[in-house]
Amino acid sequence: MNTLGHNFRITSFGESHGVGVGVVVDGCPPGLKLDLGFIQKELDRRKPGQSKITTQRKESDEFQILSGVFEKITTGAPITIFIPNEDQKSKDYSHIKEQFRPSHADFTYQEKYGIRDYRGGGRSSARITAGWVAAGAVAKQVLEDISIQAFVSQVGELKVDEDYSTFDFDEIEKNAVRCPDPKVAEEMFKLIDSVRKEGDTIGGVVTCVIRNMPVGLGEPVFGKLHAELGKAMLSINAVKGFEYGSGFAGSSMRGSAHNDAIENKDGAITTKTNFSGGIQGGISNGEDIYFRVAFKPVATIMRDQQSVDKDGNEVMVSGKGRHDPCVVPRAVPIVEALAACVLVDLSS
Amino acid sequence: MNTLGHNFRITSFGESHGVGVGVVVDGCPPGLKLDLGFIQKELDRRKPGQSKITTQRKESDEFQILSGVFEKITTGAPITIFIPNEDQKSKDYSHIKEQFRPSHADFTYQEKYGIRDYRGGGRSSARITAGWVAAGAVAKQVLEDISIQAFVSQVGELKVDEDYSTFDFDEIEKNAVRCPDPKVAEEMFKLIDSVRKEGDTIGGVVTCVIRNMPVGLGEPVFGKLHAELGKAMLSINAVKGFEYGSGFAGSSMRGSAHNDAIENKDGAITTKTNFSGGIQGGISNGEDIYFRVAFKPVATIMRDQQSVDKDGNEVMVSGKGRHDPCVVPRAVPIVEALAACVLVDLSS
Amino acid sequence: MNTLGHNFRITSFGESHGVGVGVVVDGCPPGLKLDLGFIQKELDRRKPGQSKITTQRKESDEFQILSGVFEKITTGAPITIFIPNEDQKSKDYSHIKEQFRPSHADFTYQEKYGIRDYRGGGRSSARITAGWVAAGAVAKQVLEDISIQAFVSQVGELKVDEDYSTFDFDEIEKNAVRCPDPKVAEEMFKLIDSVRKEGDTIGGVVTCVIRNMPVGLGEPVFGKLHAELGKAMLSINAVKGFEYGSGFAGSSMRGSAHNDAIENKDGAITTKTNFSGGIQGGISNGEDIYFRVAFKPVATIMRDQQSVDKDGNEVMVSGKGRHDPCVVPRAVPIVEALAACVLVDLSS
Amino acid sequence: MNTLGHNFRITSFGESHGVGVGVVVDGCPPGLKLDLGFIQKELDRRKPGQSKITTQRKESDEFQILSGVFEKITTGAPITIFIPNEDQKSKDYSHIKEQFRPSHADFTYQEKYGIRDYRGGGRSSARITAGWVAAGAVAKQVLEDISIQAFVSQVGELKVDEDYSTFDFDEIEKNAVRCPDPKVAEEMFKLIDSVRKEGDTIGGVVTCVIRNMPVGLGEPVFGKLHAELGKAMLSINAVKGFEYGSGFAGSSMRGSAHNDAIENKDGAITTKTNFSGGIQGGISNGEDIYFRVAFKPVATIMRDQQSVDKDGNEVMVSGKGRHDPCVVPRAVPIVEALAACVLVDLSS
Repeated sequence: MNTLGHNFRITSFGESHGVGVGVVVDGCPPGLKLDLGFIQKELDRRKPGQSKITTQRKESDEFQILSGVFEKITTGAPITIFIPNEDQKSKDYSHIKEQFRPSHADFTYQEKYGIRDYRGGGRSSARITAGWVAAGAVAKQVLEDISIQAFVSQVGELKVDEDYSTFDFDEIEKNAVRCPDPKVAEEMFKLIDSVRKEGDTIGGVVTCVIRNMPVGLGEPVFGKLHAELGKAMLSINAVKGFEYGSGFAGSSMRGSAHNDAIENKDGAITTKTNFSGGIQGGISNGEDIYFRVAFKPVATIMRDQQSVDKDGNEVMVSGKGRHDPCVVPRAVPIVEALAACVLVDLSS
Repeated sequence: MNTLGHNFRITSFGESHGVGVGVVVDGCPPGLKLDLGFIQKELDRRKPGQSKITTQRKESDEFQILSGVFEKITTGAPITIFIPNEDQKSKDYSHIKEQFRPSHADFTYQEKYGIRDYRGGGRSSARITAGWVAAGAVAKQVLEDISIQAFVSQVGELKVDEDYSTFDFDEIEKNAVRCPDPKVAEEMFKLIDSVRKEGDTIGGVVTCVIRNMPVGLGEPVFGKLHAELGKAMLSINAVKGFEYGSGFAGSSMRGSAHNDAIENKDGAITTKTNFSGGIQGGISNGEDIYFRVAFKPVATIMRDQQSVDKDGNEVMVSGKGRHDPCVVPRAVPIVEALAACVLVDLSS
Repeated sequence: MNTLGHNFRITSFGESHGVGVGVVVDGCPPGLKLDLGFIQKELDRRKPGQSKITTQRKESDEFQILSGVFEKITTGAPITIFIPNEDQKSKDYSHIKEQFRPSHADFTYQEKYGIRDYRGGGRSSARITAGWVAAGAVAKQVLEDISIQAFVSQVGELKVDEDYSTFDFDEIEKNAVRCPDPKVAEEMFKLIDSVRKEGDTIGGVVTCVIRNMPVGLGEPVFGKLHAELGKAMLSINAVKGFEYGSGFAGSSMRGSAHNDAIENKDGAITTKTNFSGGIQGGISNGEDIYFRVAFKPVATIMRDQQSVDKDGNEVMVSGKGRHDPCVVPRAVPIVEALAACVLVDLSS
Repeated sequence: MNTLGHNFRITSFGESHGVGVGVVVDGCPPGLKLDLGFIQKELDRRKPGQSKITTQRKESDEFQILSGVFEKITTGAPITIFIPNEDQKSKDYSHIKEQFRPSHADFTYQEKYGIRDYRGGGRSSARITAGWVAAGAVAKQVLEDISIQAFVSQVGELKVDEDYSTFDFDEIEKNAVRCPDPKVAEEMFKLIDSVRKEGDTIGGVVTCVIRNMPVGLGEPVFGKLHAELGKAMLSINAVKGFEYGSGFAGSSMRGSAHNDAIENKDGAITTKTNFSGGIQGGISNGEDIYFRVAFKPVATIMRDQQSVDKDGNEVMVSGKGRHDPCVVPRAVPIVEALAACVLVDLSS
């Protein structure tokens, strides 16, 4: 169950502190001239050590293409992208070998598999999303005109305005938080930094906006566009919720306010409002798709926490290592990547 | 794409005003003595006409088993359950034949398929969830000890207490809203009824609690338990969001507050809090699973709305027919049904 | 595992002596004006009682469409076709309830599932292929120009000429054996009839020829056209072998004789010979596809046979009932049907 | 479509003259202590340059495990095995860049994808089966007691006795042909060698015998054990046919001779004969499974052949390079490997 998608399938492999992480992309259209620099650029958006509010762990995240590309052009054969781990031996993990860290996957992996690669979380580490970002960088090149832009819309209690149309998306990559509102970005930065100094972590929300959508993507009834997007987003580490269009707020509304009146705007059928979030009946209607993804605070904190070890003895787990105080800035390219994969999958 | 699941697969078919709706359940364990009365009971929880706050449309929703059961016992062969439509010719749909109803799937189906069965929404109608409820009634019987209980936790702005442990779940089926807090239930009933009288509709939230979970269900990294639950829930008509455990509220929290300390309680490894919602790393940890599903207000309202027809002419769509003023009371068994299907699928 | 195909998926259900047999066809293109008479015609080619060399069991095999078709046009929704069993109660099966018939699936079903619907073979009966033929009749209408023609090429030791180009395919449906060589057909008929009178059965081979193939169908490396055809054919009851192009005979050949020289015939790239059977590297090359399917003799014979009962006691199983002395005449439409389904699946 | 299997899934990637070839094995049970030496041994059975009747191309086929194994034990995470290509730049392929080699996949790949990696056949090369053999070496370790043994049973017109029980399987690996009958092996060797000297190639048949089978593997009706085996075998390069049990010869038999009488042998239910090939109704019955796989003569011959180039001009393709005069000796481990993968898949 390490494969996502039906016609554009990404198969994820690798562990945090193994040889490396990677992905096999099966179903990529042939004849695509791959921009390898773009793939690296996307990986760089996700990689650790970007600023003082992300983990200081060092990984260059340089990738290798092991198959599927001939003279820089995709051939229709499966594309394998591999990102070797550089940092794999630099750390002592003996302290968590026998212990279950609270709100990590240590206990569940141990119980399910009877064995776990405890080094840096092994397979349950967010490091494996590097492969997903690489796959997404391929998918984005397939999509061409469709634009996918994610950003940080909330950190802790700090939120940006709900109406994304008010933002200049060019601001997003200009700050370390990846928030389109420079003022809120600054506050978020300070908050994350102070949380970091306290040895604590904090959650946040990533919003994603997809523009230039064609009409007709999505396969009712069990391949609905928002259900596939939701599944993909809920696969990202630390995600606790997904909503699209009006989302949970829509539950408080009345139909007379929520319905999107339809109009003919110079020959184009469009809606006056977009509470539907660009999807009706599981199929894109051509309006912007937008959705929000909730991330919990990172589980690794620099504090002692009560837990048990493998033998059931109660122990104190002490926080160590270099971890993100807040995951959302680095989650932005991951959200975009999986959204791109889902769109290509449903277009194929 | 009308199949959900990998090892316990439900294939949905049928339309609102065709011959009927149904489901093929493939992968059901053999040797299960099916309680047919229970299947009918579950269908009755979903069927229209239950109270004055649900649609007054009449369907007895009596089912037929077309295959897979021999002398009332499952054989391992695919189980086909069919629910004939009784109401299929009672209504005149000519008024929406050429028009696209706002926030319905009329436009997207027409554009995607070039044809649509416009009668009562055809394939996009929530009527098809009758088949899902039947499949879920089979799945519940497979699960035995695991208890799945959904309830209405919000209608419009009216919400119940967040801590579900305070409720007596026996109250849920005692009121027409399916809300475990009798006082809030009464307010919700009044609200829905008043909305109905206004010819309007209103959204709501269904919460689902799963108890007696075994440890180990869920398949990282693209078959995570919450991702599969999320996908299933997002497949239900009118759903706009899904969150589990701390959900969106968890985004405002700090790791030190959010992490679930682990303890050894008389030999059982358990957590002191359960912000994780019973799932860590995509795998169940044995604690209660709980999640919330947001429903938008029903799109059919008894008012005139601006839209266009198939030729792009602007028209007024007028509301007709017998529809639910609020979908959540009848959505409760649907949420439970799909949750049951996902659990059996991941147990297989 | 009752679903065949990825994009054009047929899900089979039903038992020999249950309510009926059927199929859900998911992924059929919308907008197809279905010729219902053609579906019935195909079912009639498979149905029992066609001549004195097929079983005398009576089934009219009239079908019902339960979903997916609106005003005789496919809508893109799953098409459910159901064929009620008429003959379901006419026979006493108590004699095989406790016994395992040699070379039937009685023992393996009992061991695998712990229960079996013993009436007429239940799920393991070839009756369920009626649903497949119905699905194939839909697939054939999707294919339009591609012609799929199967015929009986061998019964016992009697064989037709290997070069199918010498035959007039119009002869096939003119005789009860479905053999394109009228003289051999007559001999085959006599052979089957004499075998029948002896209470015995005999095997045979069905050859299938697909003409007007487009170039490019088939998905290397695990969705090769011939591998998908082979899997489908091997799913048919009583099939023991599959070969395409030169097949097993090709194993005796040298490369210099077997290679198909390529030529440019008035602008069309074609091959001089066609030992490849129209497929190279798993992808159609535009030449005729032809393959052969080996059927064993029907296991039900009118003789006493040594076996054991459910408790392991050795018993004599005595042959009863109305069964085919040779399955290949009725297998012809089944072979065509699954070939059509595979082609549509790989075209989608 | 580069993935085989449902629960034990192998995803193949790589090209003949790219960076390397490999496989991702998803669904391998955790806790398996992998014998890496065994994997290498299996790869060595397949690798080129083993004797003078195989290609003289040099590849050491040393593998790397990129994921899924921790301290030599499988963790339940996907196992990636990569086999770098050593020989990748040693050859000039410009002569076939523009030409379509007869009975190769050049034309079909070019037409389907619009581009092809022409170096050594690229994705259509049998070199990619190295990854499959590695996956099979993992699968064999999962199977433990089940023994899978393939051997060469035919080269050209030379055949071994049909009754495999007469052979000492220990002879198989003692000769370069991998034929269990030493006398026939010697004749086959001479035949292949003389064919090689003529610059020609020759076909053959591989038989595979599976012993110690448990009862109950196989999923009717579209995951039958023999259908899954058949699909896997037909995925191997150069395969033209598959038959199991009595196979095509069974088509000439009568039911009274073909049926396998069942007996109780000291408490074990077994069959007196085994024309069924260990499978009834698609499910293993505990008897030996045996099947035969037909391979065509290798398409690359050292002779001039008529063909066309990419522009449709008629050309002479001249044979070059180091290729196998007969593929079956090296196909033996490939047949076993895929059989093992299918068995694990259906056991999961």
